[in-house]
Amino acid sequence: MVRKNAFYAQSGGVSAVINASACGVLQTARRHSETIGKVYAGRNGIVGALAEDLIDTSVESEAAIAALRHTPGAAFGSCRYKLGSIDQDRGQYERLIEVFRAHEIGFFFYNGGGDSQDTAYKVSQLGAELAYPIICIGIPKTIDNDLPITDCSPGFGSAAKYVATALREAAFDVTAMSRTSTKVFTLEVMGRHAGWTTAACALAAEHEGDAPHILLLPEVTFDERRFLAKVEETLARHDHCVIAVSEGIKRPDGEFLSASGLQDSFGHAQLGGVAPLISNLISTKLGCRCHWAVPDYLQRSARHIASETDVQQAYAVGRAAVEFGIAGRSAVMPAIRRLSDAPYRWDIIAAPLAEVANQEKLLPRDFIREDGFGITDAARCYLAPLIAGEAYPPFKNGLPDYVKLQNLAVPKKLTTEAAF
Amino acid sequence: MVRKNAFYAQSGGVSAVINASACGVLQTARRHSETIGKVYAGRNGIVGALAEDLIDTSVESEAAIAALRHTPGAAFGSCRYKLGSIDQDRGQYERLIEVFRAHEIGFFFYNGGGDSQDTAYKVSQLGAELAYPIICIGIPKTIDNDLPITDCSPGFGSAAKYVATALREAAFDVTAMSRTSTKVFTLEVMGRHAGWTTAACALAAEHEGDAPHILLLPEVTFDERRFLAKVEETLARHDHCVIAVSEGIKRPDGEFLSASGLQDSFGHAQLGGVAPLISNLISTKLGCRCHWAVPDYLQRSARHIASETDVQQAYAVGRAAVEFGIAGRSAVMPAIRRLSDAPYRWDIIAAPLAEVANQEKLLPRDFIREDGFGITDAARCYLAPLIAGEAYPPFKNGLPDYVKLQNLAVPKKLTTEAAF
Repeated sequence: MVRKNAFYAQSGGVSAVINASACGVLQTARRHSETIGKVYAGRNGIVGALAEDLIDTSVESEAAIAALRHTPGAAFGSCRYKLGSIDQDRGQYERLIEVFRAHEIGFFFYNGGGDSQDTAYKVSQLGAELAYPIICIGIPKTIDNDLPITDCSPGFGSAAKYVATALREAAFDVTAMSRTSTKVFTLEVMGRHAGWTTAACALAAEHEGDAPHILLLPEVTFDERRFLAKVEETLARHDHCVIAVSEGIKRPDGEFLSASGLQDSFGHAQLGGVAPLISNLISTKLGCRCHWAVPDYLQRSARHIASETDVQQAYAVGRAAVEFGIAGRSAVMPAIRRLSDAPYRWDIIAAPLAEVANQEKLLPRDFIREDGFGITDAARCYLAPLIAGEAYPPFKNGLPDYVKLQNLAVPKKLTTEAAF
Repeated sequence: MVRKNAFYAQSGGVSAVINASACGVLQTARRHSETIGKVYAGRNGIVGALAEDLIDTSVESEAAIAALRHTPGAAFGSCRYKLGSIDQDRGQYERLIEVFRAHEIGFFFYNGGGDSQDTAYKVSQLGAELAYPIICIGIPKTIDNDLPITDCSPGFGSAAKYVATALREAAFDVTAMSRTSTKVFTLEVMGRHAGWTTAACALAAEHEGDAPHILLLPEVTFDERRFLAKVEETLARHDHCVIAVSEGIKRPDGEFLSASGLQDSFGHAQLGGVAPLISNLISTKLGCRCHWAVPDYLQRSARHIASETDVQQAYAVGRAAVEFGIAGRSAVMPAIRRLSDAPYRWDIIAAPLAEVANQEKLLPRDFIREDGFGITDAARCYLAPLIAGEAYPPFKNGLPDYVKLQNLAVPKKLTTEAAF
């Protein structure tokens, strides 16, 4: 195999462990310098390739690369940018090839969720369609856990551990306050279509009656009457009620609850926030004091409370991507295969990108309790190992000590500029 | 000294470390059984005393008491309930004495913020006013850090560490996304009148240009025009902007921004949430994509990211309270005195409750940067040691393993019931 350079980029919403995958890619590539020359990272994902804005990772020290394993965010920048089909966006694909050819890139590693795997799949077709052979590997990443084939997606376990921890801690707060103050607490969780992260909140409960008392999953249509009855029943039994709500719950008419036209005092439509809506509904209809929290980005960047299992898997899919590439495999994504629940064992297999792209894995029906407000034992059994283990970052002056890379630009070789 | 029982209660909003103070009280009292008989905890603060709803802490194991040191919330329940003056609420004070006398209570330990120290102070006057001698000690607790005399308040350091960590992590997220997606992130922080916790967010920044770029402190009147100009300037320089806003910021007319009449689609007034307001203002006026987070209770219950310094101080004020009591001191509150900044050294002194009650310590002017949007070196110097050190709780099955006490009721001795 002729030695070629590699392109690596991070795409979509970031996570606590996407940089652990980068660490796996870069450390493994460095061990295989006979096959992979330099690894160029795209500055802000695929946008960096289109703009010929490449980062030379070879100047980073071993220590800096190792520190990626404990650093959240996306070290090279990410993007929300979806390429169309090769037919539609032929110009962009030709531009990609131009950049790849100029920088002798023979490996394409794309680290992201469903849309990103779709991009990776399209790039993998470039060889046949546009006569530029390139080995193309997708690397899974999404806190939403909605990628198919892989048993779970790196990023999810840490977000799950964060929300379950936060919910358990907030429940200690509400339990203490409910006698004379707040009786209902609502935690809003990310996951617009798939309820995996909301479901993970249920791990906070150890015993009957423990919080959360109600989950509002995006897979279950929101029914105001049934919901309020459940809140009342919970209050009657426990004097407090803790709710985890997905940002993506929908009304019976199929509309997102969050799209329901909040207006602020400036007269502007209000951005998002299902938890305040739910909270307001309860305080108005049931007359009790409510609190709510929307952790938003905090839940997907909380590297300080990452799952060790998740960190290991994120690293492993990065390493496997390079190993697949060196073995000459293309158009695949390293996927996690569960071998057993307890003890939890897993390995990595190759999932064809054609089968991964544009598929969304929702919470299966048998993971959702019959009343729709909770999860089943099967779900707990699936979720439990994914949050196992702590993987604390180093701390300096009382705060996590995360790395910022130099991110030096590779000198441009092309005279043409893309419109970025 | 005749052996007497003690009453201990937790009051006001809880914190990650108020139970560490409980641990200090209970362990120290157990070591002094020649002076203190049983420690009865009030179920839900002073309400438990008024209702003769006492908890027998003597049945709890040593291990359970030790586990309070790493458990958030208020193990015995808290309350928001303020006693009036002895003249106004004479009936309630007489009821307190009736309960204390029935249970041979000679020590009153009240763990809370400003209002609670006021209650403790009033109870300390019972001896003279109502001929019931009782040793009365306040134990400081507030994440708002607004108690006077004491250099800092237990609960604050951990909340400060939480918000600074969260802000640093979210900033890694925004930095990665700003090229094609979110450019502004706003974190809402507790502290209605005092900006200590918001100020602590600034600790997340290590170098010039690091997030947070803007603090909105309750001590500084919100000026929309100046604020938007500062956001624009930050975006021009860094392409992203991270803001920490206190829930208590006010308009030039003195009104809370949060009281500005949000309405939801049900037509209800919207509860709180300054961050969504700020976010909306920016997206409307500057046209960029914004995200916001409101961690609410998460920031005051996040024991998993507690400051070791804070845990030590919380324990120390609990221990000192009992030691003061045994030494016959009354109407005092153990206060933390700073001896040096670096290395950070502190000890405990006795602050007279008369001087603590109903005083609110705001951020001093020389801690606030001249433009009002940041803090000074003096503030950093004050804040830095308070978040130092990690104090991880034990974990089980991937989640913090917190204790729930049995909280067995002490048999009632009175036939009369208070209206609780």
